[in-house]
Amino acid sequence: MHGYTGDKDNYLKRLARIEGQVRGLARMIEEDKYCIDILTQISAATKGLQAVSLRLLDEHLKHCVAEALSEGGKNADEKVREASEAIARLVKS
Amino acid sequence: MHGYTGDKDNYLKRLARIEGQVRGLARMIEEDKYCIDILTQISAATKGLQAVSLRLLDEHLKHCVAEALSEGGKNADEKVREASEAIARLVKS
Amino acid sequence: MHGYTGDKDNYLKRLARIEGQVRGLARMIEEDKYCIDILTQISAATKGLQAVSLRLLDEHLKHCVAEALSEGGKNADEKVREASEAIARLVKS
Amino acid sequence: MHGYTGDKDNYLKRLARIEGQVRGLARMIEEDKYCIDILTQISAATKGLQAVSLRLLDEHLKHCVAEALSEGGKNADEKVREASEAIARLVKS
Repeated sequence: MHGYTGDKDNYLKRLARIEGQVRGLARMIEEDKYCIDILTQISAATKGLQAVSLRLLDEHLKHCVAEALSEGGKNADEKVREASEAIARLVKS
Repeated sequence: MHGYTGDKDNYLKRLARIEGQVRGLARMIEEDKYCIDILTQISAATKGLQAVSLRLLDEHLKHCVAEALSEGGKNADEKVREASEAIARLVKS
Repeated sequence: MHGYTGDKDNYLKRLARIEGQVRGLARMIEEDKYCIDILTQISAATKGLQAVSLRLLDEHLKHCVAEALSEGGKNADEKVREASEAIARLVKS
Repeated sequence: MHGYTGDKDNYLKRLARIEGQVRGLARMIEEDKYCIDILTQISAATKGLQAVSLRLLDEHLKHCVAEALSEGGKNADEKVREASEAIARLVKS
């Protein structure tokens, strides 16, 4: 069980939409669409991925990290370190 | 003809890889993979999209914008404005 | 007491350096320096701020959020919600 | 003469505000302000720097790059390459 388990359908629906956007990007390249329109579509897909990651992270903090912290001990430190590293990757990407 | 026309195969290969990563994300959710591993995979897909957009933008400046500027006139201003707006969307996403 | 309290000097030193970089930016504008060099200096200052924020957030999770979670109750939820919102602001800025 | 030359006062005013925000950050640390409030202020300063850089880049494209491109030759390629690299640094920071 993870933070996102209760809401899988919503995540899968969002990811299916993003997958469709990426497939649409390939089609735009094949059909010689205008560069700026392709860039706009890339921004949309990127924003979609960002929204998924922020939501996953929120649920991860609320469930996995919260649980580890309420139990305390070494695992709690590890969970926070891991979450901080994931946040840094998100911020830098 | 656009800036990317001469290099379509490379773009299509990159986009196919990103599409595979997004499909992989859905599978990770279905298989209850660990949140942090999913976030790492999202960062990889996001970086892939970012690389495509930076490359597209570079070629767009080199070809479409350069051509409009060498012709001068109203279209040149429009092309620069359009490129600046696309850059702002990239920076903010 | 906050997560950063034990390490104030380090934060103040980093912020003094960033303040110097921003003042340097104004000087570059006044002295008509080349746009690209100014942009490079802006990226350095932005990266400096980003590093400070990632570190603050890490310490915040380790101390303030961890404490609230180990005590449980309504305050714990509030702390996680607040942290998630701060992360979203960082990711989007 | 650079793209920003005609609008120096505006840039200097924005940078003075950002410098004040960074100095305010140091004061918040000294006065043991709450981590989340410090993070909010960092986001504001970062957004301020981002707005300055997007504007500088827009003017750089409109003036320096446009001029080099209308003259053509090797310098034009160099200017576009330089601008693309600056954009990549902005997008990644």
